[in-house]
Amino acid sequence: MLENIRIVLVETSHSGNIGSAARAMKTMGLNQLYLVAPKQPLDEHAIALSAGAEDVLKQAKIVASFDEAVADCALVIGTSARLRHLQNSLIEPRECGTRAIAYAKQAPVAIVFGRERIGLTNEELLKCRYHLTIPANPDYSSLNLAMAVQLICYELRLAFLSQQAMTESLSTIDNTYPTHTEIEHFFQHTERLYTALGFIQNQGVMPKLRRLYQRVQLEKNELNILRGMLTAVEKRLK
Amino acid sequence: MLENIRIVLVETSHSGNIGSAARAMKTMGLNQLYLVAPKQPLDEHAIALSAGAEDVLKQAKIVASFDEAVADCALVIGTSARLRHLQNSLIEPRECGTRAIAYAKQAPVAIVFGRERIGLTNEELLKCRYHLTIPANPDYSSLNLAMAVQLICYELRLAFLSQQAMTESLSTIDNTYPTHTEIEHFFQHTERLYTALGFIQNQGVMPKLRRLYQRVQLEKNELNILRGMLTAVEKRLK
Repeated sequence: MLENIRIVLVETSHSGNIGSAARAMKTMGLNQLYLVAPKQPLDEHAIALSAGAEDVLKQAKIVASFDEAVADCALVIGTSARLRHLQNSLIEPRECGTRAIAYAKQAPVAIVFGRERIGLTNEELLKCRYHLTIPANPDYSSLNLAMAVQLICYELRLAFLSQQAMTESLSTIDNTYPTHTEIEHFFQHTERLYTALGFIQNQGVMPKLRRLYQRVQLEKNELNILRGMLTAVEKRLK
Repeated sequence: MLENIRIVLVETSHSGNIGSAARAMKTMGLNQLYLVAPKQPLDEHAIALSAGAEDVLKQAKIVASFDEAVADCALVIGTSARLRHLQNSLIEPRECGTRAIAYAKQAPVAIVFGRERIGLTNEELLKCRYHLTIPANPDYSSLNLAMAVQLICYELRLAFLSQQAMTESLSTIDNTYPTHTEIEHFFQHTERLYTALGFIQNQGVMPKLRRLYQRVQLEKNELNILRGMLTAVEKRLK
């Protein structure tokens, strides 16, 4: 999945930052680097700072515009230090990791980093589905570009590893958890019995019970006990 | 709490790394920097790379030995790239954040970073309670020193913010959640009724019900409904 996530750096001023970003990416298992109109060529300084990640640098795609870098992406997330006005679409790195990995199963995803000093333009920000903000010290939030890339790639990797672990455990879930229909039967059974008993007299009770039992994620053996308790009451009533 | 957490850099070779580490710390709200026998003085290169975090650099404590840097600390966590043999004490950055913040409420905590090339010595590692490993790409795990400092300080900040949020919400908890005794009464009520109904005939059922309802963390209004359901059945039986 990580190979479906690209890091896009827009009009980077210092080639050293590109090298450091490439290194940061590779330490977290990412290698798709896109450069939108970099201000300096990929010179020796960039290569020196990329350390062992020269391969990421060498295969980086250099494009002329923001649009070109993200054209085939299903999800575009933009990052910048000054995003406070974009309340509705703001996400933090952890959520960015989860969302990006969810999309990356099927289509390319772009995480776009703006210019060192001025970030992304408003026009560029408007092209992003989500806006990523790092919960930094409000008195000093000046992360170096490559540091920000490192943090985001770290969260992408954690989300990827967690996804992997979940996929591996999914094969055993069928035996442990009841189906949606089985849980629905339990709710209907409960409603029928306690309405007959006169306890449920309005629409308020069942939604609360539903919320409780959905929250706990019932296991099969637990559902069997709860159903057994309902049946035990019914038997005595007859 | 963050002021009780110090970042210790041991025998750092490049002053630039110290400057970058200071900047990384400050972006996450940390400012206690300890330097054990740095190989280069805090020169202009260090100051340039610290950007706006010159204050962290200026108040850094330079000490002669590892022991001196951590003498008054209640918790010492050591980090290095080669820790795979220390299975029992290994933690990842997220757990490091939680544990460090828990201790830092009461006493100083040290997170110790080793030399750029060779990390911490075995003797130094043995002095650490936990050993911190970053879940990096196994094919290329070479994080720059300041990048590692950035990641760890980020997790420290997240743990700190989460701790703050929890403290703020604790004041409202008393009204929302039932007491231990109230929950015990519910379990006793359930056991009494369903034993009378003949459904509970052995020691197996109650532990399972306890596990279920402990897991969901019942709210007061939910407990009231469950108690009401027991009472409704009882009334009908009489």
